[in-house]
Amino acid sequence: MDHELCLPEQAGDAAQTLFAALREALGAAAVLTGEDIPARNEKDWSTLSALRPLAVLRPTDTEGVAAGMRICAQHGVAVVPQGGLTGLCGGARPVEGAVALSLERMVGVEEIDPASATMTVRAGTPLQTVQQAADEAGFFIPLDLGARGSCAIGGNLSTNAGGNRVIRYGMAREMVLGLEVVLPDGSVVTNLNKMLKNNAGYDLKHLFIGSEGTLGIITRIVLRLFPKPGCTMAAVCAVESYDKLIALLNAARRGLGPLLSAFEVMWPDYWRTVTQRVPGVSNPLAGEHACYVLIEAQGMDEAFDAPRFETWLTRQMEAGVLADAALAQSLADVQAFWGVRDACAEFPQVLGPHESFDIGLPVAAMDQYVSACGAALRSRFANAVALFYGHIGDGNLHIVACVPGASAQPKEEIAGIVYSLVQQFGGTISAEHGIGLTKKAWLPYTRSEPELALMRRLKAALDPQNLLNPGKVV
Amino acid sequence: MDHELCLPEQAGDAAQTLFAALREALGAAAVLTGEDIPARNEKDWSTLSALRPLAVLRPTDTEGVAAGMRICAQHGVAVVPQGGLTGLCGGARPVEGAVALSLERMVGVEEIDPASATMTVRAGTPLQTVQQAADEAGFFIPLDLGARGSCAIGGNLSTNAGGNRVIRYGMAREMVLGLEVVLPDGSVVTNLNKMLKNNAGYDLKHLFIGSEGTLGIITRIVLRLFPKPGCTMAAVCAVESYDKLIALLNAARRGLGPLLSAFEVMWPDYWRTVTQRVPGVSNPLAGEHACYVLIEAQGMDEAFDAPRFETWLTRQMEAGVLADAALAQSLADVQAFWGVRDACAEFPQVLGPHESFDIGLPVAAMDQYVSACGAALRSRFANAVALFYGHIGDGNLHIVACVPGASAQPKEEIAGIVYSLVQQFGGTISAEHGIGLTKKAWLPYTRSEPELALMRRLKAALDPQNLLNPGKVV
Repeated sequence: MDHELCLPEQAGDAAQTLFAALREALGAAAVLTGEDIPARNEKDWSTLSALRPLAVLRPTDTEGVAAGMRICAQHGVAVVPQGGLTGLCGGARPVEGAVALSLERMVGVEEIDPASATMTVRAGTPLQTVQQAADEAGFFIPLDLGARGSCAIGGNLSTNAGGNRVIRYGMAREMVLGLEVVLPDGSVVTNLNKMLKNNAGYDLKHLFIGSEGTLGIITRIVLRLFPKPGCTMAAVCAVESYDKLIALLNAARRGLGPLLSAFEVMWPDYWRTVTQRVPGVSNPLAGEHACYVLIEAQGMDEAFDAPRFETWLTRQMEAGVLADAALAQSLADVQAFWGVRDACAEFPQVLGPHESFDIGLPVAAMDQYVSACGAALRSRFANAVALFYGHIGDGNLHIVACVPGASAQPKEEIAGIVYSLVQQFGGTISAEHGIGLTKKAWLPYTRSEPELALMRRLKAALDPQNLLNPGKVV
Repeated sequence: MDHELCLPEQAGDAAQTLFAALREALGAAAVLTGEDIPARNEKDWSTLSALRPLAVLRPTDTEGVAAGMRICAQHGVAVVPQGGLTGLCGGARPVEGAVALSLERMVGVEEIDPASATMTVRAGTPLQTVQQAADEAGFFIPLDLGARGSCAIGGNLSTNAGGNRVIRYGMAREMVLGLEVVLPDGSVVTNLNKMLKNNAGYDLKHLFIGSEGTLGIITRIVLRLFPKPGCTMAAVCAVESYDKLIALLNAARRGLGPLLSAFEVMWPDYWRTVTQRVPGVSNPLAGEHACYVLIEAQGMDEAFDAPRFETWLTRQMEAGVLADAALAQSLADVQAFWGVRDACAEFPQVLGPHESFDIGLPVAAMDQYVSACGAALRSRFANAVALFYGHIGDGNLHIVACVPGASAQPKEEIAGIVYSLVQQFGGTISAEHGIGLTKKAWLPYTRSEPELALMRRLKAALDPQNLLNPGKVV
């Protein structure tokens, strides 16, 4: 077993020397080895198997991260950064012979600056803690995802997390003003900028956001704070064609402007499955339609924004864009509408083993893709199930596919069909989950050789020894 | 004279060989040398002197840019990319012995995709042309600046242009989804992405946006299109303290939410100068106040948004936040209010020779900075004039300073006072204009040595021969 290679009693002198140097620099409590290594540090939420790291480092400050990185580099040992370990693509999963560097003890909000509307926070802080601190200070953190209680804000940035409200607030990247980062050589690059405008030299933060811990370890972050929404309006709508859906999207962009906070489309197979088979989900609409969409807007003042939303919806109905619509009359309605969209969390129970995909496509191509992908899957596997839904205003489509009754899901073959069509339609194989290990082989389906060469060149420039999260992404 | 070194009859065989190779690859019309070089390609809008480049290349397509770059690299000759040449810091100004590569013939909109709400455009296209094309397609390009008729969209991105509405739409960077770039070795990296969400590998575009043509030459761009604003509301307000100004800013963020499109603050010396000395500017307020602010919101529908704005303003007055306010009753009023803010364009006539600065500061520190900077300038030069105004919600402050009657403005000494205080207050020496050549010596006042080292490392990785816009920024 690979694991046993890493037990300290069997590890060679080199490992013992490394551990001693790390304990000397970081303190014994910050260096876990052998049986002391928690199982949680052996994997993330991907389907990859567990792998015990050589050691787990748990520094409590930036200097500790820098020292750990520097000492590992001196010993030629790789480092895998870990946050909340909720990633879906293996970005934080240990690799053979590497030390895991966990940010779990680098938690806490350092400062909230109401005038600049910024929060300075340590990278290991759970997203939910960040959200709550903003809320208590009278502000709002729009970044939100299912793993909010476990995921770390540093990990959210290293994967450039998305979520439901990207159409309004952008990706995690757009919510960051400043970063502190430890480079693979252990040097610390600090730019805790609070200004929306800062054009003094290269904007280095974007190099680290979304590069999945392969170029540097994010240790501190300056986040933008947003005003709390004053009210939320929502409707579920049905349309008779994808053309009408595009018309509805553009009408929402125009009529709701920057208040538009979600435009979540569900194709009929998805709609039928969740409304008929997921317990507790009720169907707010009657009949069968070409597409269903949950539209949400966040306003500042219900007195102005609720009538605006209703007027806008009525106009769409009168203009013949909508086949049917249900307007939320209460917060309970809003939650019930989101229940249809969030029912995808129940697919393991409802569908059994299945494959999930997080792809992106130009909006105009999406319905053609859905048809082509469903047909291709059913042509290869007669009884294939393929459900399509996603954040269509952002160009993000989720796919759930399976072959019911198969003794093992034909993972690679399904992925090959999904990603070959992504390539054909000019889309992306990862809209929000990243590449990590699990999608790396497919990356050439969506990025050209000159792009990949430039990524490798950046990796070599920042990490010439290939010691930081090696083998991930590029 | 330096220029004469570059005249073809005196240039050595090496230059003639280079010109021949360029003419062979690009055609004669794309390679201007000697007296055929237009004066406009010898400088930008900075105060730097003109310098004739070795040649001016004017390719008509990406392959031409790539060939020009490749051939120059083979000959060890540097290349300075040029767009509309409206930059204020010398980023596009030729350097000794370099070829200027002008994007002036790479113009035109290639595609507007209404479903994705994107425009694909060639980098040499003037910003105004881009704005008009969006308008004709029913969309809106929020990027706007005074040089709109001359500046090129590629140049806007290479400097990550700002402008008046950053508080709502972000910097130019935030308006870009995809880029095509020619690297210093002549290879072409194309990612004309149209999706808001795309996490497949490193996000390379941010490396080139804001790096002022030192890492690659932007050739094509996918821009986000926004819905056209349906209505514009504006007010000019006065407050009795900077604390009240911050309270007003936070009330605007909350009450106007993402409709807030400008929060332009003017300090009393600025206000007095423009309302009393600039012809055609009228003062919409009476009396003297601690700070003046122009607040603008862009709405979707006047029926809802105009009453909202007025209600919000009335509440601020009733809450004692405002000392005085004037609400625009017409588009003419909106324009008159902006006239006070835009009157800074008349400073050459009103003040005579003066120095202008574009700095950034944390919002909370701004008023202290204004006091400290004014005092320091007057302490050094008894009759110094210092006017302060800017996009305060974005952390961006503009300063105009001069010593009336001085035989020559003490440029370096004024800059030293301004930037030393920027350093002390944790600000930036460039909020939106970039670094180019003119601010390069001051860059260490705002970026640390590890940051500068990382910038140099990126430059070396992408441009190991230092042939693309050498000597700029880093």
